Amino acid sequence: MSTKRQIKLGAIIHGVGSSTSLWRHPDIQADASINIDFYKKQALKAEEGKFDLLFIADGLYINEKSIPHFLNRFEPITILSALASITTNIGLVGTLSTSYSEPFTVARQFASIDHISGGRAGWNVVTSPLEGSALNFSKKEHPTHDQRYRIAEEYLEVAKGLWDSWEDDAFVRNKETGVFFDPSKMHRLNHEGEFFSVQGPLNIARSKQGHPVVFQAGSSDSGRRLAAKTADAVFTGHETIEEAKAFYSDVKKRAAEFGRSADEILIFPGIGPIIGQTAEEAERKYQEVADLVSIEDALQYLGRYFDHLDFSQFPLDEPFPDLGEAGKNSFRSTTDRIKQKAKEKGLTLRQVAREAATPRSRFIGTPEQIADQVQQWFEEGAADGFIIGGGVPNALEDFVEQVVPILQARGLYRTEYESDTLRGNLGLAVPVNRYTKQHENSLI
Amino acid sequence: MSTKRQIKLGAIIHGVGSSTSLWRHPDIQADASINIDFYKKQALKAEEGKFDLLFIADGLYINEKSIPHFLNRFEPITILSALASITTNIGLVGTLSTSYSEPFTVARQFASIDHISGGRAGWNVVTSPLEGSALNFSKKEHPTHDQRYRIAEEYLEVAKGLWDSWEDDAFVRNKETGVFFDPSKMHRLNHEGEFFSVQGPLNIARSKQGHPVVFQAGSSDSGRRLAAKTADAVFTGHETIEEAKAFYSDVKKRAAEFGRSADEILIFPGIGPIIGQTAEEAERKYQEVADLVSIEDALQYLGRYFDHLDFSQFPLDEPFPDLGEAGKNSFRSTTDRIKQKAKEKGLTLRQVAREAATPRSRFIGTPEQIADQVQQWFEEGAADGFIIGGGVPNALEDFVEQVVPILQARGLYRTEYESDTLRGNLGLAVPVNRYTKQHENSLI
Repeated sequence: MSTKRQIKLGAIIHGVGSSTSLWRHPDIQADASINIDFYKKQALKAEEGKFDLLFIADGLYINEKSIPHFLNRFEPITILSALASITTNIGLVGTLSTSYSEPFTVARQFASIDHISGGRAGWNVVTSPLEGSALNFSKKEHPTHDQRYRIAEEYLEVAKGLWDSWEDDAFVRNKETGVFFDPSKMHRLNHEGEFFSVQGPLNIARSKQGHPVVFQAGSSDSGRRLAAKTADAVFTGHETIEEAKAFYSDVKKRAAEFGRSADEILIFPGIGPIIGQTAEEAERKYQEVADLVSIEDALQYLGRYFDHLDFSQFPLDEPFPDLGEAGKNSFRSTTDRIKQKAKEKGLTLRQVAREAATPRSRFIGTPEQIADQVQQWFEEGAADGFIIGGGVPNALEDFVEQVVPILQARGLYRTEYESDTLRGNLGLAVPVNRYTKQHENSLI
Repeated sequence: MSTKRQIKLGAIIHGVGSSTSLWRHPDIQADASINIDFYKKQALKAEEGKFDLLFIADGLYINEKSIPHFLNRFEPITILSALASITTNIGLVGTLSTSYSEPFTVARQFASIDHISGGRAGWNVVTSPLEGSALNFSKKEHPTHDQRYRIAEEYLEVAKGLWDSWEDDAFVRNKETGVFFDPSKMHRLNHEGEFFSVQGPLNIARSKQGHPVVFQAGSSDSGRRLAAKTADAVFTGHETIEEAKAFYSDVKKRAAEFGRSADEILIFPGIGPIIGQTAEEAERKYQEVADLVSIEDALQYLGRYFDHLDFSQFPLDEPFPDLGEAGKNSFRSTTDRIKQKAKEKGLTLRQVAREAATPRSRFIGTPEQIADQVQQWFEEGAADGFIIGGGVPNALEDFVEQVVPILQARGLYRTEYESDTLRGNLGLAVPVNRYTKQHENSLI
């Protein structure tokens, strides 16, 4: 086993993809988002590629204008659990929002997946960007961006506390003496906070990973702060290596301010590789996909980031309109980036919409070219790993079959799993139980 | 395929069992409640026996006095999903409380399991008997029994409405025309009620069963009412065939009052068969298990039904104490039965506690004797089916291997699955989507 730092990889399994029109491609299963065989096949392909993890995204509100994948897809807890049974080494990471759920339930469900999978669960903590979510959860209004992050921070404290309800050796199960568990190793959290009061203990033992791996996916200031303080990994997205490096060093620096070392928090940009045997073939694949999108669909897709703003009210071939505060409370970092880029490059609405609907991946080219880029991002401090997404058909298959062997040959990527837990493969330590730590400290 | 009415069977997979001490038995895996291989093996054994369903129970509060299985077990949504992947025909039914969850989330999770399993999901609706649950869910107090059932009734209305969000043919997915779905077949629920306001639509298509099968497990007056109005099946428990018959006819009569036919709601008493090659061997198996329980454990177990009342304060060998209202807000039907039986038979506290801790199953004897009883209950209107539990080691294995063949030989039980959905095997119709129904009615 090499001690050299290696690239980590995840695969986002995302049905017909996060675009309006990819489902129309002849090589895409139009029902992929709700097809269990598709999910199983993707999971096994990622595991064949020795990926660290698979990733399931989520959302809590839809309407007529939502993109196809969002309308009809599996719920993360259920699909992760189902995939746990048919895989053996790959991590199982899913999105769940802290704005519309109960920490007792969610801590328990991820702990249960961790037990079911033998230590492979991960939770991508999000706060739900969509205003409409409140309408599905008997709430008068969607909490503001800042409030959502305050809720998330307390929520994570509660969840981590509940995961420590039982010390690792609490369950004695001595048939002779009749002692099933050691009561001194069961702990009530007795959390009383601004948003939650939770007594505990959790009704499930501490799992193999101690705590399931915590991902965080918001790139706003509040999101970065939360990640730096509490997350094991960050799922992010950047258009350029410069942006990615700035983000990477910012999060690592913030983590250090919370007393954490740089390798305790891993940064995973999402990338959508477009791979061809030649650069021309790759370019052709991109154009095929871009051509599937009508301008109406592109405008609608763009509107989604801005609280479903109707962009058809603006002229198509004039400069991108000034939108003031629109989008501030939802996908803030994305909308800020869109506005800034449009301004800097003097783009028209049509250009912005087409680019938003089918972003031209930076990771486009031959397997060697993709491997070069991945290596560059990894070695220059832009990424610890990557989440591979599918902007074109068969992106995961192509990456596993054509790029992974190159990375392996270069010694940048594993040829066999180091561990059967997600923490083990990511090189993250199992957190010491807070109560065990107290015991140990009291002995000093 | 026979059109004769046949017995339905479920298996409750319940780790080390619902007793204080069964885990100490040499033939029991002491970690069974959290052992995925145990759950998989049980599920496959039940499927080998052509069972209609497996059943996962649940609870939301524990303390030092909880029985071993409750302290550390899988969460139902996760374990059902995991078992979906390794089974093909058996139904997957799990308990989830309407008192501490969100209908959007829960409707979605069961719909997702239904998609993952190809139409095998079932939800056992409970309202959480344990007062302490409130402490884990940031609530000031546990709702009263009546309020919990009012919440449950509205909750189920919402869930069923959400399951109808999409008509069965809503997803067109026409690659030529670019029409992914038909907007006229997507429906917002716009529910505004006393406890919930939920807009919808659900972000998952209607599943193969239309609605996952709804079980209900409360036997109080409110529980029976809820079952009669909304459930497809009832999981109940009775000590005698007379009680079971009275319950059976009461629920069927109540269902008729809601305009439902008797075969639209199936009654499943839970039974814990104790099977020996001779009656003596069966009796010995029971005694082995009963002898594992200390009187202290028995008192503690009894206390659980009465809000963890400390029964050690009462004399052991005097008549069962008068407890007034204790237990009225939790396991009401159970505590009423315990009190009544103690009074009628003049039992001491010791006798009540021992009986509570290790109830002597009525279904004890040789495979032929068990089959006779099952047949009698089924034919005399006490049951449509049974949920087989494990009060002794290997109860499920014994039942599948020794009793099932007898029931099959008598033509009382299937030799092959009739369907790949739970509704199909139970003989329950797929509910017509409420909006499709409206369309059809408007054409008349």
